Amino acid sequence: MRLSQFHLHTSKETPADAEIVSHQLMLRAGMVRKLAAGIYTWSPLGLRVLRKVEAIVREEMNAAGAIELLMPSVQPKELWEESGRWQKFGGQLLKLRDRKDAWYCVGPTHEEVITDLARNELASYKQLPVNFYQIQTKFRDEIRPRFGVMRAREFLMKDAYSFHLTDADLDREYRNMHAAYTRIFARLGLKFRAVQADSGAIGGDASQEFHVLADSGEDAIAFSTGSDYAANVETAVAAAPGPRAVAAEELRKVETPTQRTCEDVAALLGIPLARTVKSIAVMADDGFVLALVRGDHGVNEIKLAKVPGLADYRMATEAEILAHMGSEPGFLGPVGMRGVVRVVADREVAALADFVVGANEAGYHLAGVNWGRDLPEVETVADIRNVVAGDRAEDGGEIRIARGIEVGHVFQLGRRYAEAMDCTVLDETGKAAVPAMGCYGIGVSRVVAAAIEQNHDDAGILWPEPMAPWQVAVCVINPKQNPSVIEAAEALYRELQAAGIETVLDDRGLRPGPMFADIELIGIPHRVVVSERGLAAGTFEYRARSADASENLDRSALFARLHGNR
Amino acid sequence: MRLSQFHLHTSKETPADAEIVSHQLMLRAGMVRKLAAGIYTWSPLGLRVLRKVEAIVREEMNAAGAIELLMPSVQPKELWEESGRWQKFGGQLLKLRDRKDAWYCVGPTHEEVITDLARNELASYKQLPVNFYQIQTKFRDEIRPRFGVMRAREFLMKDAYSFHLTDADLDREYRNMHAAYTRIFARLGLKFRAVQADSGAIGGDASQEFHVLADSGEDAIAFSTGSDYAANVETAVAAAPGPRAVAAEELRKVETPTQRTCEDVAALLGIPLARTVKSIAVMADDGFVLALVRGDHGVNEIKLAKVPGLADYRMATEAEILAHMGSEPGFLGPVGMRGVVRVVADREVAALADFVVGANEAGYHLAGVNWGRDLPEVETVADIRNVVAGDRAEDGGEIRIARGIEVGHVFQLGRRYAEAMDCTVLDETGKAAVPAMGCYGIGVSRVVAAAIEQNHDDAGILWPEPMAPWQVAVCVINPKQNPSVIEAAEALYRELQAAGIETVLDDRGLRPGPMFADIELIGIPHRVVVSERGLAAGTFEYRARSADASENLDRSALFARLHGNR
Repeated sequence: MRLSQFHLHTSKETPADAEIVSHQLMLRAGMVRKLAAGIYTWSPLGLRVLRKVEAIVREEMNAAGAIELLMPSVQPKELWEESGRWQKFGGQLLKLRDRKDAWYCVGPTHEEVITDLARNELASYKQLPVNFYQIQTKFRDEIRPRFGVMRAREFLMKDAYSFHLTDADLDREYRNMHAAYTRIFARLGLKFRAVQADSGAIGGDASQEFHVLADSGEDAIAFSTGSDYAANVETAVAAAPGPRAVAAEELRKVETPTQRTCEDVAALLGIPLARTVKSIAVMADDGFVLALVRGDHGVNEIKLAKVPGLADYRMATEAEILAHMGSEPGFLGPVGMRGVVRVVADREVAALADFVVGANEAGYHLAGVNWGRDLPEVETVADIRNVVAGDRAEDGGEIRIARGIEVGHVFQLGRRYAEAMDCTVLDETGKAAVPAMGCYGIGVSRVVAAAIEQNHDDAGILWPEPMAPWQVAVCVINPKQNPSVIEAAEALYRELQAAGIETVLDDRGLRPGPMFADIELIGIPHRVVVSERGLAAGTFEYRARSADASENLDRSALFARLHGNR
Repeated sequence: MRLSQFHLHTSKETPADAEIVSHQLMLRAGMVRKLAAGIYTWSPLGLRVLRKVEAIVREEMNAAGAIELLMPSVQPKELWEESGRWQKFGGQLLKLRDRKDAWYCVGPTHEEVITDLARNELASYKQLPVNFYQIQTKFRDEIRPRFGVMRAREFLMKDAYSFHLTDADLDREYRNMHAAYTRIFARLGLKFRAVQADSGAIGGDASQEFHVLADSGEDAIAFSTGSDYAANVETAVAAAPGPRAVAAEELRKVETPTQRTCEDVAALLGIPLARTVKSIAVMADDGFVLALVRGDHGVNEIKLAKVPGLADYRMATEAEILAHMGSEPGFLGPVGMRGVVRVVADREVAALADFVVGANEAGYHLAGVNWGRDLPEVETVADIRNVVAGDRAEDGGEIRIARGIEVGHVFQLGRRYAEAMDCTVLDETGKAAVPAMGCYGIGVSRVVAAAIEQNHDDAGILWPEPMAPWQVAVCVINPKQNPSVIEAAEALYRELQAAGIETVLDDRGLRPGPMFADIELIGIPHRVVVSERGLAAGTFEYRARSADASENLDRSALFARLHGNR
């Protein structure tokens, strides 16, 4: 492609309403243009990148045995009523009425349509397993669309839906898709993690989210250095603690007149924060509960709610605390409360010796506390804390925490849609069986933004090579003044193209400064400058987008350098 | 692709609600499935064909210098109000309200969006000319969707929009697109014609429709054997007639007691129908007009309305005819009417000698009528008739008439959208100039149906090779009984694939009858049968889809035969 004939429209100004760097850079590079809130046109440059992602997704889905089809965007209300989601989906469902006053929606997802297709097309277990996918434009009427294509209302998605006679088959395809996703994001050149999602709320059996790692990510992810284990911090699990240390200190009551937090108490007493214990007062179905976590840990609400009896717990009020504990908050502790209130201790707290708790008396804490000696062994021990960086993982590795952007998910839907929509196939015995379903999504347009969040610098985008609009930019210095320069550049451009290296020729005649700034902004991985001086010396000036400096290479050295990028 | 792993779902039954053959065959072949009125899912098989069309369109658009982008499906009302089409577009515009009660539509076309983009992106004449295109799903809320994807509500379209400083530039790009469309439809392997459209109603400067020829086409097209001239029969023009013959007969009044039509009169008198003249009475703005066409011709309403003074004509009532002509219909004629009513004669009528007209007296006609002698030369001579097959064309060829399906159009929009939406660029002198626009559409999904209308037989579809889902089907007879047969078929399949020939292996284990019926129904151009008997003889049974019989070919003869299909 000759850039003079390509509609490139860059800008130096950072748009005022773009809050995150990918949105800023996509606008500055001219990759997208806003048409309305959360609705974007993909420019020629942006579309090149989008298509790169789409192609890799398609290749790997095909290689994994999924079959592509194309479902409609506009979907009839009747199907959504069958699944029960016409109301339940909420405000994100963009509803409309046609000229005959029939209700439709602009599809935000296609479980209903595919299940309808399946109940018409799939008659026998012999047609299973099958995995249908499409790459298609969807609409979700986000209440607050923002961050450009990262949380747009109209977006491009790859969605796949598999059907299986048995749960084992579903599980096999789920793992097949997990492997395909791993290949997809690896091929895209992105750092990513497959994160265990908390599937409880969605009702499925197994679920993992694929996150592109980026400091600006909305979600905090805990992962292990010891395996590919990764989970949302809300659900991540660390290894159980080792055996409890032997008691060495005497129980003592210490004055902590103004010290209400563990940090303040630890500082006052000169002990590690990890030896203090926080007492959190909550109200559960069957009454007041004191939950204990170490001072350096935070309570994990999701885990706490999984403790039997605490499913619908809430924080206790100050009045409830006074009534049950006889003390104001800030000085609470489990000593002496056996039989008075229920105590739930985190595993790490149960493993402590010589620790500090509140004395249930304003202005006092107890130090040198030990289980069994100063208070009875706790009734309920559970993992109720958030993991922290540095924790030991169950696989023996170390837990680290990074931020991530969700770009994909794999999900065992089970039989809820097939059951609700009366989708059955005949099994080996001729009996009607409800197939189990999996669904597998990738936010194709979101991947583009996430890649920029992960790969950028002050000058602009640093595309991973497989996503770059072109691999190489050939920049011509003063093309109009010197015909031999443009000739040499054209020849190089044609040679690179012939070698299978996607190349753009910047023949716009810009001065070097603005030209290089554009090429850096739009993130072309390799830049080759053709100049009069270089031609005289028989060299091209080469610079990798990620490198600090350029080098002068002759033709064969240049091709050797670029050869890896065919 | 192995058919055992591809979701093929054919049917022998012709669906009751499918009125045309392409709809019937697309349903029987399982290419599309109806989700709602005019809304279809493209199955894996259908999508393969759709993508073939899409790819050829894309390649030729790129080769022609157009630049691909991707505009949104959901478009804000404001833009459509600027262009004046929010109301004017009518019921086909699918309007909707988002959760914030803002109005949008699901885009049926993108003139508004592209003009909005252009006014933001194009600042200078230096950025022109430019031609942006997209291949994108559109929605038109047809009042009566029918014929499957031929007149669907949701459909896939390639739409391109070009911007130019001058009309000459627009004209150049218009011709460039015309040439690209010609290449596209030629590459698709379709018989087609570029048809001059009557552009008056749409307000543009020049406009041509591309029609795929098919007997079932909605539009009748006149084309010439002497050039690529083609036009809708409503606007087609034949060559002007030669000089008038010399009068040879005497004027005579003939009794035609019950003969009111030219056919009856000609039969009664034993003269050619082409020597009779029909008199059509119409009311124009400035009064009664008698329009004359030959008895073997039909009046063309569009052409008649272009005669000065007749823009808003209507047929005269019987009372008006009696009042102005003094005679009832069936016996009308121009003789003696000079100064009484205005007479408009078709060019062919003006060229007649010794012709027959009504006598303006019930039961009588005049024969041997001649201009200048029996009635004054006619005031207005114009082309007011429909062409008929066999007419001489202006290029010297012969006019023929075929039926066609509109699958594309090229259109000089001019400046109406740019003007309405305040889109300007600076010209060479630094002055704001309104760019001229062209628009160029191809109904990608419609092409698929049109190709079937043109290419089918009793057994199913006959795809032109470039549109076929696969070029070759390798059919395996009794794969389970004989491992050597499936091995040989697999080997052939891999060899063909390696030779770049798109091949499908029918390894489903069907009996030959149903297997061959499927392969014929879905229209695979080449079928190769691998059987035990063939292997023993060292041959494969080859049959072209369009051939009457099969032949036994050895490996090298088979590859030589298929070689052209790489």
